[in-house]
Amino acid sequence: MSTRTPLLVLGNISTRSKILCLSKVLDFHHPHQLKDGLEGFSLDLPEHAETLEQILVDCRDTLKYGVSTGHPRFFNQLSSGLDVIGVAGEWLTSTANTNMFTYEVSPVFILMEEVLLKKMQSIVGWSEDEGDGIFCPGGTISNLYSILVARYRVCPEVKTKGMGALPPLALFTSEHSHYSVKKSAAVLGLGSESVMVVTCDERGKMIPAELESSILAAKSKGLLPFYVNATAGTTVYGAFDPLAAIADICHTHRLWMHVDVRPEQPKHFDHLIYVIACSVTWNPHKMMCVPLQCSVILVKKPGLLQECNKLGAEYLFQTDKPYDVNYDTGDKSIQCGRHVDVFKLWLMWKAKGSDGFGSQVNKCLENAEYLYDQLKRNSDFQLVFKHKPEHSNVCFWYIPPSLRALQPGPDRDRRLHEVAPQIKGRMMEKGSVLIGYQPFGDKVNFFRCVFSNPATQPEDIDFLLNEIITLGADL
Amino acid sequence: MSTRTPLLVLGNISTRSKILCLSKVLDFHHPHQLKDGLEGFSLDLPEHAETLEQILVDCRDTLKYGVSTGHPRFFNQLSSGLDVIGVAGEWLTSTANTNMFTYEVSPVFILMEEVLLKKMQSIVGWSEDEGDGIFCPGGTISNLYSILVARYRVCPEVKTKGMGALPPLALFTSEHSHYSVKKSAAVLGLGSESVMVVTCDERGKMIPAELESSILAAKSKGLLPFYVNATAGTTVYGAFDPLAAIADICHTHRLWMHVDVRPEQPKHFDHLIYVIACSVTWNPHKMMCVPLQCSVILVKKPGLLQECNKLGAEYLFQTDKPYDVNYDTGDKSIQCGRHVDVFKLWLMWKAKGSDGFGSQVNKCLENAEYLYDQLKRNSDFQLVFKHKPEHSNVCFWYIPPSLRALQPGPDRDRRLHEVAPQIKGRMMEKGSVLIGYQPFGDKVNFFRCVFSNPATQPEDIDFLLNEIITLGADL
Ligand SMILES: Cc1ncc(COP(=O)(O)O)c(C=O)c1O
Ligand SMILES: Cc1ncc(COP(=O)(O)O)c(C=O)c1O
Repeated sequence: MSTRTPLLVLGNISTRSKILCLSKVLDFHHPHQLKDGLEGFSLDLPEHAETLEQILVDCRDTLKYGVSTGHPRFFNQLSSGLDVIGVAGEWLTSTANTNMFTYEVSPVFILMEEVLLKKMQSIVGWSEDEGDGIFCPGGTISNLYSILVARYRVCPEVKTKGMGALPPLALFTSEHSHYSVKKSAAVLGLGSESVMVVTCDERGKMIPAELESSILAAKSKGLLPFYVNATAGTTVYGAFDPLAAIADICHTHRLWMHVDVRPEQPKHFDHLIYVIACSVTWNPHKMMCVPLQCSVILVKKPGLLQECNKLGAEYLFQTDKPYDVNYDTGDKSIQCGRHVDVFKLWLMWKAKGSDGFGSQVNKCLENAEYLYDQLKRNSDFQLVFKHKPEHSNVCFWYIPPSLRALQPGPDRDRRLHEVAPQIKGRMMEKGSVLIGYQPFGDKVNFFRCVFSNPATQPEDIDFLLNEIITLGADL
Repeated sequence: MSTRTPLLVLGNISTRSKILCLSKVLDFHHPHQLKDGLEGFSLDLPEHAETLEQILVDCRDTLKYGVSTGHPRFFNQLSSGLDVIGVAGEWLTSTANTNMFTYEVSPVFILMEEVLLKKMQSIVGWSEDEGDGIFCPGGTISNLYSILVARYRVCPEVKTKGMGALPPLALFTSEHSHYSVKKSAAVLGLGSESVMVVTCDERGKMIPAELESSILAAKSKGLLPFYVNATAGTTVYGAFDPLAAIADICHTHRLWMHVDVRPEQPKHFDHLIYVIACSVTWNPHKMMCVPLQCSVILVKKPGLLQECNKLGAEYLFQTDKPYDVNYDTGDKSIQCGRHVDVFKLWLMWKAKGSDGFGSQVNKCLENAEYLYDQLKRNSDFQLVFKHKPEHSNVCFWYIPPSLRALQPGPDRDRRLHEVAPQIKGRMMEKGSVLIGYQPFGDKVNFFRCVFSNPATQPEDIDFLLNEIITLGADL
């Protein structure tokens, strides 16, 4: 285990390099290998208790065969890093083991949720008397809430009567937006086809004119447009939709504007725009490095969440309690029992301050720029688009020697498409670094590097590029 | 802090009593008191980092002003107790800080999920080639999944076309069932009125003849019945719906039978019945004392969850990965990022074995019987219904001296209704013990005692009754 400890802070850079070389990101095994049991690591569940010694071995093996998402060379996903205060917060949370439904059992955590929601609302730019929200299990559920509440706003009867109370609805999101919008539309009974997918420009930004014409087309088909999701930091390119233009269109057509935002630092919150948004998804478990899960849905209009979801179960939400039952906020939720996700964020905020979060995110943006600069000057690589990264994502191809002389065209594309998965496979076997890849539209498989771990240093980025070159040299 | 440590195992009973008397269940403060800051405990979020010393004080105060749900005298909710192995499991989970969407980032946890689902399916009684499922954030979401999948089964087009693809639907659940059924119907776009609430007998069990006539009534109104939720261990009374009779009715009318089950031990799984169920909600964070959150939805027909929810996002679920991508189970989920809830359960199962869980649950059932016996022989109390508890819930009134001579009727009811909230208020101020209360139908406020913490001893139950008598003597 000692060689795989995530290395958060190491002063001496050359020591750091040496230790990181020894410390693998993962120790890959195929499912059948892990299932067959490796050196006494069996996943089977016993009839009778195992010894404490065996339990400790089980714990060690679970870590050994897992993936070190906290490793500075894990570039695979946005939820990465390992913040010690965040982990301590999660440890205290699980020791307290309580439930967010009522003030009665979670007095402190309910108030922390209120404080954090207010803080986040003020960062978004909403005034003191505006704003509501709730912590929920992930950004996908946050996006689901936004559609749920927007639908309720159009027609409160939907809560009791269902979709039959409404004409067929249409909602809008860009082709680069996260799939949670479609998934939620399916879950909520709108159907995934009610989601109109708006075309983006080459940088992955929604084209306002396309949104406008998509709205008009939906209307002419007899659909009722009601909701637009704009993304501020898309999943793959890290692109920002043109929020001001989208806000104008939402205003004209009287549509709910939701912003699915990743930036989490003030410079990314253009208040003049955000104040217009009806709801905002904010995922502290991404750029803010809060341990999973930690996501927030903010809703501008107070009371709406509660009206939309309230059922008033008498065994939980008694109105004759000896305290102000407005603090029993659990009926705003689509859950009943709700995990305490707020404490770790609260504690990290205390330990870093707003400015600490700011410099942490800046570090990631700097890393993205550094990678971009390296890629631009190295002809072994090709950027997916030429512009500087707006966020912490950088997308690129590695062009192995055998492809360098080929003309662009279907043959080169077909071969290039196989490069990233092959390198990734070798990377997983070796375990030295981890990065994601994917195709997008007519673009064949490319690498997507995302930075969210402030422990990542330029040398880790150099290492990534060198690994790709080494592993792909013979392709 | 030392006086409030949850006391799990204390050999010497008289020492235990003394320590428990010192150790409060809660240290109650009103919201405004906590918000104003108590002795330097401020919830405000700073611009700049606080000192580590202050962070530790913040942690101490968070615990101090919270509720000790692990205390053996916390009878307020089903999620209670503090299992050390479970907590250790959660600590490791947060240290690993990874995501359940793909095998790529969670190889071990994905396999543990598979092993646990198989185990639970076999306990339910499904054969090797049947059964699917997923861990999700709470029993409410599990119940939501069951309706979602049942709806998809009726009409797969609903996924793309929405509720417009279907005639108006009807689903059935008892008046004693959990409100999550109605909440889910609202969220899913069926509307809460699509839920037909079936009458129960005086013990809180669904009356099969009522279900039958409710189905016929729905049909005659042009609704399409498609789903019945049966509860095995209701929230308030701990009642078991008559599963066999309900299964027959579901079979006759070709309805999806879901069982929302709390027992979690084999003696409560009547296999002949469960094998008929199309889906089962099982919440290890209740009777099994697994730290929150830990809930499972089991679906009998393999493949259905995946078909219902799959969208195949290319940045996560690439099909050209170097391993068997059937292990990328994340697309079954309505979430994207998903917290690892499986490890703590897996570790506890290793540490206790199936039989350890069995005796733990038995302990709770014995406690319920003990309380029942005490109440029966003490005329200060009145049982809400006369039968022995089937599960770990016991519902009762305390009749204060001033009410004992009154005839049953509206006047007595009105006064009795105020007794439980008043005692509960005093209890919270004193902090010695915590129990819930509520009205139900024509029954005025009564106490609901639930046992799920195996650390609770008969002496804690005696203590509870004595506290109620002491606190309510002057009412
Ligand atoms: C019978 C029953 N079903 C479902 C639930 C919901 O579970 P959760 O609180 O995990 O959402 C409860 C909670 O009390 C319950 O009692
Ligand atoms: C833009 C965007 N929105 C929403 C989500 C969903 O977040 P979660 O994984 O927390 O459900 C993601 C996840 O990658 C995302 O990139």
